Order: sequence, then C-alpha cells, then structure tokens
Amino acid sequence: MSQDKKSIYKPRAITGFPEWLPEERLVEQQWFDHIRRVFESYGFCSIETPSVEELDVLRAKGEVDKEIYVIERLHKEDGDKDARLALHFDQTVPLARYVAQRFNDLIFPFKRYQMQRVWRGERPQAGRFREFYQCDIDVINVDALPLHFDAEMPAIIWEVLSGLPGMENEKIQLRISNRKILTGFLEDWGAPDIPAILRILDKLEKVGEGQTFSDLSKACSFTNWGEDWTAANILMGLAKIKASTSENLRSQIAELKTRPGQPTCLEGIEELCSVLDQLSHLPEGAVVADLSIVRGLDYYTGTVYETVFVDDPTYGSICSGGRYDDLAGSYISKNLPGVGISIGFSRLFAKLLSEGKFDLSRKSTADVLMLLPGEEHAEAAADAARKLRESGRKVEMYHKAQKIQKQFAYAEKKGIPYVWLPDLGEVKCMATREQVKADPTTWKPGKEDKNAAVA
Amino acid sequence: MSQDKKSIYKPRAITGFPEWLPEERLVEQQWFDHIRRVFESYGFCSIETPSVEELDVLRAKGEVDKEIYVIERLHKEDGDKDARLALHFDQTVPLARYVAQRFNDLIFPFKRYQMQRVWRGERPQAGRFREFYQCDIDVINVDALPLHFDAEMPAIIWEVLSGLPGMENEKIQLRISNRKILTGFLEDWGAPDIPAILRILDKLEKVGEGQTFSDLSKACSFTNWGEDWTAANILMGLAKIKASTSENLRSQIAELKTRPGQPTCLEGIEELCSVLDQLSHLPEGAVVADLSIVRGLDYYTGTVYETVFVDDPTYGSICSGGRYDDLAGSYISKNLPGVGISIGFSRLFAKLLSEGKFDLSRKSTADVLMLLPGEEHAEAAADAARKLRESGRKVEMYHKAQKIQKQFAYAEKKGIPYVWLPDLGEVKCMATREQVKADPTTWKPGKEDKNAAVA
Repeated sequence: MSQDKKSIYKPRAITGFPEWLPEERLVEQQWFDHIRRVFESYGFCSIETPSVEELDVLRAKGEVDKEIYVIERLHKEDGDKDARLALHFDQTVPLARYVAQRFNDLIFPFKRYQMQRVWRGERPQAGRFREFYQCDIDVINVDALPLHFDAEMPAIIWEVLSGLPGMENEKIQLRISNRKILTGFLEDWGAPDIPAILRILDKLEKVGEGQTFSDLSKACSFTNWGEDWTAANILMGLAKIKASTSENLRSQIAELKTRPGQPTCLEGIEELCSVLDQLSHLPEGAVVADLSIVRGLDYYTGTVYETVFVDDPTYGSICSGGRYDDLAGSYISKNLPGVGISIGFSRLFAKLLSEGKFDLSRKSTADVLMLLPGEEHAEAAADAARKLRESGRKVEMYHKAQKIQKQFAYAEKKGIPYVWLPDLGEVKCMATREQVKADPTTWKPGKEDKNAAVA
Repeated sequence: MSQDKKSIYKPRAITGFPEWLPEERLVEQQWFDHIRRVFESYGFCSIETPSVEELDVLRAKGEVDKEIYVIERLHKEDGDKDARLALHFDQTVPLARYVAQRFNDLIFPFKRYQMQRVWRGERPQAGRFREFYQCDIDVINVDALPLHFDAEMPAIIWEVLSGLPGMENEKIQLRISNRKILTGFLEDWGAPDIPAILRILDKLEKVGEGQTFSDLSKACSFTNWGEDWTAANILMGLAKIKASTSENLRSQIAELKTRPGQPTCLEGIEELCSVLDQLSHLPEGAVVADLSIVRGLDYYTGTVYETVFVDDPTYGSICSGGRYDDLAGSYISKNLPGVGISIGFSRLFAKLLSEGKFDLSRKSTADVLMLLPGEEHAEAAADAARKLRESGRKVEMYHKAQKIQKQFAYAEKKGIPYVWLPDLGEVKCMATREQVKADPTTWKPGKEDKNAAVA
C-alpha cells in the first residue's frame, strides 16, 4: 500500500508557527517543568481552557477583532446555527469567562496558572509569532484582594526567570510601579484625559526625554501654571525615579518640588513601598521601583510590572502585568479584583535559542542505552532494561544486534550519557569512559554527568 | 474603570470543547505526567507540531475534508496570499510532515511521543469531542524497522494504562493481531477486494457472528468452493482465535480445517508469535492475540493493536495502532516504515471522571498552608514558606490575618494536607490532627498522607 511517489507534496514551514527539533523541545520541556514547579510551589493550580471561545465572548470587552483567527468547519452545512468560534488571543479573556461561568465551583482567592498556546491572526512578520505559548499567573478574589499578592508576583517571576536553563548569564530586572501615583497627581490637577497622558509616559524609553517632555507640556496645558513649575516637569521628575528600597523611594519623592497630598497618590506610594519591603529578600538589582512604568493596557489600576533584559533594552518586556479592579465584569455581576503577570514564553525561548544559549547535546530523553551485543543477549538486555526502568531510569533498547562500535556511536550521536552491556553486567559512562560492574536494580547515574536526569 | 454592569454577556459552555475544574485538571496533569514518564522511560523524545498545517498537507493522503476546521483571520485583507491553514485532526499527518521536512536533522530510528490537542469539525453530538488530547508514540526508521518495536508498544501501553490514577480497578486487555495472516489467506485465494473483506471482519463485535458470516459468504463468492468448506468458514474460524501464548496460537491455527501455506501468512504468524513471546512478562490476560482485530485504517500492514475494557465492550478501543510500511510517502521519496499507537486521552479521562473514579479532594497543588495568625507574624510566615519551598515543598501563604479557625477551614476546603503555624514553629496534619514542632528546612510530608506530593 505504498504511496504513489509521483504525487509528493513537499511541505514548507508555516511563517509564525514555531516548531522545534527534539533536542530543542527537550529544553522547552525543561522550561515548562521549571515554571510549573515554581508556580505550584506558591500554591497556584493549573487550569486549561479550550482553544476557542465564542466570538462574542472575545469581543465582550470591545473591539479586538484585528488579531483574531476564527475557525470554521470546512464542510459547513447551510442550516448550521452554531455560535461563531475563534481561537483565543490571550489567557485573560478565557480566565475571566472561566471564573464567571464557574464562579460557584471555585474557592477564592482563586490562584491559577495557565500555560497554553494563544493565537494572533497577524500578517506574517519577522520575529512575530502567530501561535505561541504564554505562561500566566493570576490571583482573583471577591470584592477585595490583599496587597500581599502584589508582592508575591515579582518574587515568583524572579524565581522563574533566574532559574530557566540558558538564562544563567542574563541580567534581568523587574520594574514595578503603581498607577495610583501618577493618576493621583493628575486627578488632583483635574486632568481631563488621564489615559492619554499615561500613554505619553509609557513611550518615554522609546522616544526619549525631549519628545516626552514636549508631548507632556502640550497635554498638560489645562493647568495654566507658571513656566518653571509645569505639570510636565513634575511628571518627568516622577518618571525618572528609580528606587530599590522603600526608604529610597520615599526620599526621592520628597525631593520633588511638589508634595503629593491627594489620597489616591499617597495610597499608591504606600502600596509600592509595601511591595518593595516584601521583596527585600531578592538579590540587589532584581527589583526596582520605576515610576515611568505605566503599561499600555487601560485596565490596570494599581501595581504594574514589567521585566527587562538590562543589557538588551530593545527586547522590550519579557513579562508584564499588574493589578486590575474588575476581571470579569463583562460576564458576571461580581466585583472580582485580581493581580496577574504573563510571560511571553515562546518569544523568550526563541531569543535564547537563536543566541545559542542552550545545551542541545541531548537528543534523547534516555539516561541509558541498553546495548544488544547479539540476539542471544536479547532476553538479558530486556530484563536489565526493565529493572532499570523500575528504579526510575530512562532506557532505550538498542534495536538490532550490530557491531558494538556502531551502538556506541549511536549513543554518542544521541547524547545518551550511559551505555549498558547486558552480556557483562557493566555500565559505561560516555563522558569519562569509565566502565564498571553494576546492578540494574540499584544503579544510579553518577555525579560525573551533569545532564543525567534522576527521576 | 469598572465595566458597565448592564452589558453582561453570559458565557455558555461550548459543546464538544471539554474544560475541567481545578481539581479535575489536577488529575489530568497526573495522567499526563504518568504517561510522559512511561514514554520517556523507553527513550521516546517529545515533539510538538503547530496546531495547524497547510490544508494541502492535510489533504495529501486523500479526501478527509469532512472533519477539518479551517482557520481564517477575521479581518482578512483582499490581497492575502497565505496558504489556507487548518487545525490538525490527528498527530500522524503532522508527524509524517515533520519527519519529511526535518529528515536530515533527525536520528533514526526516530522514537517520538506527542501529547497535543487535535480537532474534529464534527456536528455537536453527545459524548463526541471536537477538541481533545491524543497521546501518540511512534517509531520510524529508514527502509526497515526491527520487529522488537512491535513488542515494545504493547509493553508501554500496558504500563501506561495500568498505572493511571483511577484505572486501578479497571480490567483492560490489549488485543493484537497481524494483518498479514488474513491478507495472506485472501491473497492466496485471489480475493479481488481484500480491504472490503477486512472491513466486514472489523465489524464482527458490533454486528455479531450471524451477520458477519452472511456478509463474508457474499463477499467471498469469488472462490466457488463447496458448501462446508467455504472461505467464510475459514475466516470466521480465524477471527475466533484468541490466544495468550505463541504455543496456544500455533495450535489453534493448526486446528483450522486448512493449512496456511502462503509466505505472507506464515510471516504474519511468525511475527505475531514473536511479539507474544516478548510480552510474556506481562500479567496473565493483559495481552491476547485476537485475529478478528483488523483496524479500519487501510494503511496498517502488519501488527495491529486495540485495547478494550473487558467489562465494557461498548466503549470501543481505548487506544489503537499498528505497523505501517510508509509513513511519509506523500511528502518525501524515502521508505519510512513505522509502528505506533495512539491513546484517545480526553475520551478516556472523561469516561472515568463521569464514573466518579477520581479522588477530587485536592483542589490545590499546595502541600502546606502557611497560616497568618496576625500581621506581626507575616515576616516569620514568609520566611518559613521560603525555606519550605527551597526544600521542594509547595506552600500557599494564607492571605490575611484572620481567625485561625477560618484559616483551618480554608485548608480543609482546598484539600491542603498540612498547615504550618509560624508563631509556634509547628506543623499540623489535617488528616490525623497531629501537631508537631518542625524545622522548615528539613521537614517532609509524612507517610500518613497518601496525597501529599513529595517533589
């Protein structure tokens, strides 16, 4: 039943839909395992939502149509009355829908993580993914959410990012602010369009100080104050504040030629100071209060986060998030404040992969290759393999009685760290070339091999 | 920035797209972890392919359009020249495409597992999923693939299925046959349409012996033999053979009122006997040779598998597969024989879930709830939680200084097995109510709690 060789359809890679080789996928799995381990160590549970939502659910918060992929049955019947379905473009809308729909079955505060693919129906562009993984954590509560969680997020993210294989030498920094500080000033001044001014500040790093100052001056013309004492000056002064301790933050704010007297603003300063205090166990430079951080999305209302490569500011934010007042207001009449953060997993993974930061020498999951010196040893080999597996080892059976050198070369090529010789009852370490007698029921990979996985 | 409460869009479940509660998802994760552990313990590596393939790739093997979901950008521009993309409906076509496209980067035999969602654009029907997980393993080699792998598959599947949480009391059986046996007889007789006859036998369990015999008699009219000695009788005799050892299989075949003399047929018998011999370490009844198994798909050429609940034949096959001669002939001019098996993960999971077979008492991943007796203990609590996490425990911090009874009730409700009292430096087991002094750097969940995860 072999195919007609003439009708070959040569497949191509599809732009924007990443796919990895087995050795790359092995590192990707290590990343997922590590992230999951950290998330769970803080008591977060996993949920998964379907890949699709009803189009009307995705649209409930407003116009986001541009990035959406809709799905349709190829052979759709005419009378088909199904709701239109579309692939989700993030994990926040599905979370909101999930919480609204299953409100009575969940225990609050609801701490969930979610590591799924999301889709953006973008035009193909260099470096832009149309399908990619995001890793999100959020905590949702009813009516009020303790500030404790605002400090838990950066601690988790630091542990995640600093522990990812390949990130060992990357200098990263979490930048934190609180929207209430800027908003408080602007409310105090009676600014007519606060989001517009926040958006100007959000572009500070991209367009530079001169342009930002000029844009702010125009946007703040409503104040009618004197020349030296402009709102733009104060905002620029705030935006330039960088502080790694609460004392330092307070003193820098005190140095400004104005006094924050408005309650929202004071609340923001207190919250940010409290978050910094709770993060004092992290290494120097890991976290910094940076009042220029506002995040583009309108729904953040308090703490906001972003995370950067200190030596590569062009990358943008590795992961970002913040606190919001009302997660699921579009779907349920409950007040559900939350705080969350999202890691742009695939983009980060692809960056490090392209920079050669990963050890790709393991092309197999096996710890041990079981050799097959001759068919007469097949039973002994199968028996030793079973015993090794029962004690947690990963064992690939060599598939054919061939020259032993060929079998060694196979282990070498696949990066399998040990080979087992069932005829001799011995194991050989491929790195050190050491060969010793061993009992398959008790043997463990030695310390000489850093890659050997101990299950 | 809270939403306008009047414009609430109440979300509904989407038929055919399953979604689980956190406690259900916890079991689902245990399933994935277990399956992955077993697959990897045999040296299989993971790959993932994009959710979509080009429509022409999915169609390369013939007409399968009915079940396909195509995707389309909601705001598609007119000049858009992208290839049409569709969600994959299985993991075999993507594997074939992957192997063809990356042939020079892979090491053969290529042993891969894949646990991803697949999509079928079916009409909504009770119990039918339109999005579900499949767990596949396949081994692909160039030109020839040792029979050793045909025996490795059932060993793996047995270990997977018998070790899944919730499957403890299910009696399952792997049924194995070899297509060459029936095909050999039919070729020998000069049957004009072999697949048509195999399809009749495939329905034996569904339609019963009487109907099958009558259908076979009609289909075998080409032979023009005598009344008692019809081809239908021989085929029925073959289809009724059930044997758990190679000796038994050989003797049952010998008892048939015919002698298989054709080489393909003899080869099939030898292969099936060899597979049975290699599986003799499995428990009695785990595996049985059953010559009625043919599997619907036309591309199987040798060993075929299916797996059933012995006490629930209506469920059909839990997982099925077999050997094929030519995986990727539609995409590459290479001869790539393989053998593989696919577990219908979500359907099996949903069955056991609906039958109440899972322990759903854990609604959190945490081993320990860190209590917060008062704000003055916040630092001690955070410190103890950090130490516990560093030694591998999963710890949720109670979020608020509240009455201690309320905090205990929260642990109870979430099914968290231990609570930690940071003011006393003590830990309490929720099951036994035992409370002891403990050091967070060395403490481990005791044996009294079967659910406490030891990382």
